[in-house]
Amino acid sequence: MKPLIVLNLKTYLEGTGEGAVRIARACKEVGEESGIEIAIAPQFCDIYRVASQVDVPVYSQHLDGVGAGSFTGHAFAKCIKDAGAVGTLINHSECRLKLADIEASVTAAKGEGLRTIICTNNIATTAAAAALGPDYVAVEPPELIGSGIPVSKADPEVVTGSVAAVERIDTAVKVLCGAGISKGEDLKAAIELGSVGVLLASGIVKAKDPKAALEDLVSLI
Amino acid sequence: MKPLIVLNLKTYLEGTGEGAVRIARACKEVGEESGIEIAIAPQFCDIYRVASQVDVPVYSQHLDGVGAGSFTGHAFAKCIKDAGAVGTLINHSECRLKLADIEASVTAAKGEGLRTIICTNNIATTAAAAALGPDYVAVEPPELIGSGIPVSKADPEVVTGSVAAVERIDTAVKVLCGAGISKGEDLKAAIELGSVGVLLASGIVKAKDPKAALEDLVSLI
Amino acid sequence: MKPLIVLNLKTYLEGTGEGAVRIARACKEVGEESGIEIAIAPQFCDIYRVASQVDVPVYSQHLDGVGAGSFTGHAFAKCIKDAGAVGTLINHSECRLKLADIEASVTAAKGEGLRTIICTNNIATTAAAAALGPDYVAVEPPELIGSGIPVSKADPEVVTGSVAAVERIDTAVKVLCGAGISKGEDLKAAIELGSVGVLLASGIVKAKDPKAALEDLVSLI
Amino acid sequence: MKPLIVLNLKTYLEGTGEGAVRIARACKEVGEESGIEIAIAPQFCDIYRVASQVDVPVYSQHLDGVGAGSFTGHAFAKCIKDAGAVGTLINHSECRLKLADIEASVTAAKGEGLRTIICTNNIATTAAAAALGPDYVAVEPPELIGSGIPVSKADPEVVTGSVAAVERIDTAVKVLCGAGISKGEDLKAAIELGSVGVLLASGIVKAKDPKAALEDLVSLI
Repeated sequence: MKPLIVLNLKTYLEGTGEGAVRIARACKEVGEESGIEIAIAPQFCDIYRVASQVDVPVYSQHLDGVGAGSFTGHAFAKCIKDAGAVGTLINHSECRLKLADIEASVTAAKGEGLRTIICTNNIATTAAAAALGPDYVAVEPPELIGSGIPVSKADPEVVTGSVAAVERIDTAVKVLCGAGISKGEDLKAAIELGSVGVLLASGIVKAKDPKAALEDLVSLI
Repeated sequence: MKPLIVLNLKTYLEGTGEGAVRIARACKEVGEESGIEIAIAPQFCDIYRVASQVDVPVYSQHLDGVGAGSFTGHAFAKCIKDAGAVGTLINHSECRLKLADIEASVTAAKGEGLRTIICTNNIATTAAAAALGPDYVAVEPPELIGSGIPVSKADPEVVTGSVAAVERIDTAVKVLCGAGISKGEDLKAAIELGSVGVLLASGIVKAKDPKAALEDLVSLI
Repeated sequence: MKPLIVLNLKTYLEGTGEGAVRIARACKEVGEESGIEIAIAPQFCDIYRVASQVDVPVYSQHLDGVGAGSFTGHAFAKCIKDAGAVGTLINHSECRLKLADIEASVTAAKGEGLRTIICTNNIATTAAAAALGPDYVAVEPPELIGSGIPVSKADPEVVTGSVAAVERIDTAVKVLCGAGISKGEDLKAAIELGSVGVLLASGIVKAKDPKAALEDLVSLI
Repeated sequence: MKPLIVLNLKTYLEGTGEGAVRIARACKEVGEESGIEIAIAPQFCDIYRVASQVDVPVYSQHLDGVGAGSFTGHAFAKCIKDAGAVGTLINHSECRLKLADIEASVTAAKGEGLRTIICTNNIATTAAAAALGPDYVAVEPPELIGSGIPVSKADPEVVTGSVAAVERIDTAVKVLCGAGISKGEDLKAAIELGSVGVLLASGIVKAKDPKAALEDLVSLI
């Protein structure tokens, strides 16, 4: 199976507005060169701008499990889909949700045909998330996010343990890992530990040359 | 002073995606015909789409008081500004914030030159919000939101009391009112009670003919 | 297996302060008469008062997954244990938690030897909660809480479906059900549907004679 | 005016259960010796235990603005009052609330005759809090909490600015300050800057001899 790479732009200046479009172009080019799917998760306000200008898989950084109606300031699945997204992160470490809201978010996203990635912080919550039936669970120890120390090196057991736990709950759910990932060896190690891809952010977005950083990332696969 | 009308599209289907663009055109046309400023607050994902196609003041429904950095799923002031917004709602009844976060949101919005409307639920919170120095405070008794019963009729004292309370705190802050507003007589009454405009939603968005509903709204001014 | 009944006093006036002690005495007496375990979940401030005066199993209504330290206003496991509790509700419909916090709460409670009941709203979240390894999951459709319509009658499939889902995840986890439960036939139906007991509140707390209501509750077992 | 000292026990082990009672005795003794009011804010579960054993003013660390009813896991004003508290902290840095909930909390506390201290993080939020009419606003720059660096030395302008801002909003509201306070000179400086007292925690609770630390605290007044 070809790995999945999801690049989270967070609110980094380098990934805001036209910056998001530029990085999306790098994702598209390196994705085509390598044959590896590289998706991008810009801010809400940039989803339409990126998706309408670059042919790259766009994910939302968050999605609220609400329907049409009186929900001011919410991230509504249909609006996210209409803007051009094909999937969404749910419950990222920087946007944690209540359990009932994660379930509602997965249901709302599926209702619009959006792919779902639930983010989790350890093996136990990964197992719980898998029970909700998302496409992916992305395990990211919070203390390693943005640290530059790859989870695959600092805490490989959280990856192998998550893969094993998810296997017991639902074999249709796939595992991603994240936190501190930026180099080709990190992605290689992540795959060897049983995950099918990575979620990453600052290591690429804040690189001097994001395209070169992405090329390095996929170089060992 | 010419009144300000802010039309909140919430997550109404009628105001999502191309629907948001259509209603924005109605706002622009009725605004030009009447000389009254009619702003629109679409969902995050629709801000760019609306602002790049229609020459109308666009507000965000919410804005997080965060800077550039590791803030996944947040509504970042610079991104909202870049997408074309000129202002933002803060602390809407359906998107309530902690006090410290309201203050951070006002500060972040001002840093990007965005106009700020803090929403509140009664006279005491209106006074508190005014102390944070926004451009507007919009008082909306939650029990009347979406009720079809205009605040100006059901609870005129909350409007006059809010105007008086804000006057004591900071004369530079202006008062809007909302909840149940949809007709020309409601806007007229709101102005007579001392507010400078209204925040409204379903009464226009879900009307059979939103443009006609807007024309009725401004007909008595 | 003898069923478990957990009586949640919420913030009902009848179950506050000395009222909590009075209802705890009724739980103790009916528990002894019937041989069925009847636990009580008073407000935080009443745990010590109840536990030091009545020999009845006391649960906290909530527990935060925090350790000793700088956590103002939090419900700390050690303090709850010291006050005399033997267990805790977690993630009640009226006190929903983030997924990561539910996991931390279960871990903190277990660290003090407290029994854990995670409350959930449907089959999917029940499965997710079971993956966190609590002693019990209590499924309660929110729309039936306080309705007087027992879940065992209105939505028996949510109970049988929860029992089946938990069985697949971890056979050591037991299922309770709640919402609208107040009579002997409700408890009997709950047991027949595969749950091992019930979580209930207003039907007993607001009864004219709580002891008589408890006696009716256990009369068919 | 005699100053007010409020000692927040947070979830410190030294201030949990019997530890809370021991520190409360120290507060009472030093309070009587010095003639200065020294209040204590134990955890919810310890309010009854402390208040029923020690004649010292007891504050809750938090209070929810809810009434009697279906509010599981909430801190209900009547229950807090019944347990023996005379006041409450509201919106502490470690327990931040939404603006509407702060207002509801102040109203609920006043309804039970409890004194109210709203905690804030800067001058702007202090002004906003004052507009809600509490007895006190306690300004505490979050970055100094637990730092050992007293706010009166590190950021005296936030104290004088808060005093001035509150004066303009409501002269009946008094200002406390906190963060990094532990010594006699800190309290003296706080008073000289215009506040009427201090909110403090680890500097006393984690001292080898809390009573001696309190004696030092009041030694220069």
